[in-house]
Amino acid sequence: MADESALIGSPVVDIHTHVYPPSYISLLKSRSSIPYIRAFPPSEELRLVILQAEDTESTSRGRPVGPEYYDISNKISFMDTHGIDISVISLANPWLDWLPPEEAGSVAQNINYEVDCICAQHPGRLFFFATLPLSASAPIVLTEIARLKSLPHVRGIILGTTGLGAGLDDPSLIPIFQALAAASLPIFLHPHYGLPSSVWGPRASEYGHVLPLALGFPLETTIAVTRMILSDTFTLVPDLQVILAHSGGTLPFLAGRIESCIEHDGYLKAENKLGPGRKTVWEILKRNVYLDAVIYNEVGLNAAIQASGEDRIMFGTDHPFFPPLRDEKEWASVGSNVEAINGALGKGENAVMAMGGNALRVLRLEDTR
Amino acid sequence: MADESALIGSPVVDIHTHVYPPSYISLLKSRSSIPYIRAFPPSEELRLVILQAEDTESTSRGRPVGPEYYDISNKISFMDTHGIDISVISLANPWLDWLPPEEAGSVAQNINYEVDCICAQHPGRLFFFATLPLSASAPIVLTEIARLKSLPHVRGIILGTTGLGAGLDDPSLIPIFQALAAASLPIFLHPHYGLPSSVWGPRASEYGHVLPLALGFPLETTIAVTRMILSDTFTLVPDLQVILAHSGGTLPFLAGRIESCIEHDGYLKAENKLGPGRKTVWEILKRNVYLDAVIYNEVGLNAAIQASGEDRIMFGTDHPFFPPLRDEKEWASVGSNVEAINGALGKGENAVMAMGGNALRVLRLEDTR
Repeated sequence: MADESALIGSPVVDIHTHVYPPSYISLLKSRSSIPYIRAFPPSEELRLVILQAEDTESTSRGRPVGPEYYDISNKISFMDTHGIDISVISLANPWLDWLPPEEAGSVAQNINYEVDCICAQHPGRLFFFATLPLSASAPIVLTEIARLKSLPHVRGIILGTTGLGAGLDDPSLIPIFQALAAASLPIFLHPHYGLPSSVWGPRASEYGHVLPLALGFPLETTIAVTRMILSDTFTLVPDLQVILAHSGGTLPFLAGRIESCIEHDGYLKAENKLGPGRKTVWEILKRNVYLDAVIYNEVGLNAAIQASGEDRIMFGTDHPFFPPLRDEKEWASVGSNVEAINGALGKGENAVMAMGGNALRVLRLEDTR
Repeated sequence: MADESALIGSPVVDIHTHVYPPSYISLLKSRSSIPYIRAFPPSEELRLVILQAEDTESTSRGRPVGPEYYDISNKISFMDTHGIDISVISLANPWLDWLPPEEAGSVAQNINYEVDCICAQHPGRLFFFATLPLSASAPIVLTEIARLKSLPHVRGIILGTTGLGAGLDDPSLIPIFQALAAASLPIFLHPHYGLPSSVWGPRASEYGHVLPLALGFPLETTIAVTRMILSDTFTLVPDLQVILAHSGGTLPFLAGRIESCIEHDGYLKAENKLGPGRKTVWEILKRNVYLDAVIYNEVGLNAAIQASGEDRIMFGTDHPFFPPLRDEKEWASVGSNVEAINGALGKGENAVMAMGGNALRVLRLEDTR
């Protein structure tokens, strides 16, 4: 893929790729409840357990946490192996959700500075989505957003679905969304909590990580963004830009049903919410939403492209997650996302733009200040 | 649409259309907890409350229950208005889930007989998906499946997601699935319970029915069928046919991610579940699954068609749900599903097949015995 993009001078950009900077690793090691990094005796191997549902034998107690999680040279090697010119790295979930309010502000500040310095070590190859101290309070979050201007490699922020604690349709978030829009910082909306474990049923542990990862994550994103839509977030903050992880969860597929349910809702009609000024899901998909191409197949990617437009799709890998189970050098998870783009967009300019050109434009990656 | 299909002699068939036969209405009226039909004084209007989340002022206490729910002549008028030649009617949710085990068998028997007689009143225009007494026990369910052979208008069964109480990946269901496959009775898999209400957040009631209907239903279906897939149901019962409501919930969109998560799961690998004999989600979509076209937009429908094949898509309306909020004679919810089919498949033979030919073939609707 590097050859093709070189052909018209557009780099390959990975916008969905996570890091655990050393201070975050230390923080996770210091904890005694999930999320944490610890060894499970008799093994001495350190394992990262992110989710409650992973803290069981059958899900292997999370995953081993090797240098691919914290050593940036490992990220650069991965990029070189897969022909990726630029990565927009982001702290992996669960970010700072669990931090005591009085600590969140300074931890976010330190981590954002640390990640900016990591990016500076590889000029032109690394940018990042910053982390907000959401467990603190809106004023502290606003202070951090203002401070991000001083970090030259910031190109947006990564956001989970809990917001300040009441979800992303919380009116208290509006000033934060306004500040992000004013600073031209897109939100990279990413899931973490999935769904309540009762929905997976009594046999869930027989299926490894599949149900929470394959379904819990995208369904959580779908619910979160739909709550933003229904609370008029994109009317109140018309310039808000949101990049949805995993090609929108399932929003492109369900947009028609969501629109139909809105248009047929007697309560919304009685509340005068169905007037001609309403911003539809389709308008939001085409004006406020960008979608990564982390969907592993062209069937879903086609829907994503049709929903948002081919100029709003951006390649991603989800590295360091979904590594090969054997020791292949090239990752199948990456290959399937590249194939999906080529399958959906051919191998011409539109595919090249999805592989990097769109990210370059949307995230201003040529502007190194 | 009636004109076009007449052109090549293929009728328009609605496979997703519900009835509440009079005995079921009586049953719901006799209840004092949800699901029930009752008046909320001072109003004398009878209202149908199906879901716990609907039993609030802001969601208008469910919906008025007029003749469109129980009077079959109303269904026939609806069909005539929309150019629908044949309807495959099904009992609406929640079916018989709540019935005491000792009553379920006889209630199912009575309702199935009653609905068969309703179909007999309109020869060639009505067929139905039967209801199983799942709150009873597997042997009673098997008895009812055997008995269905005596009802000439049965063309499958409608099934919720709870099965015998432990979900659709319950091994106790395998003999039931085998009996259905042996009798060539497809399952029409339909959601009812949605997701735990905590996922909708504190503002959910401001959005009317939208979150549980637009998201809860299709996400429930997605989880249910994925649990069937992960428990090897379609390997154990290779001839099982499942028609997924609402174009598969979100399965077509997420199939790539589900496959990738399976292929990258260390636990499934350690358990030797990833061998070459594994039936992939894509194989299941193309061999065991059919999808209705109740998705209201061509973006999602395109994904459904690409996932399962254009010969496995079947038009539906979800009548009597999603009526117009004003008094339009033609329903916008029906129109958007017809437009989606024409948009996705053009106006030629493939669209005509999706509008009825596929249902005719799959459900043997010309065979009136």
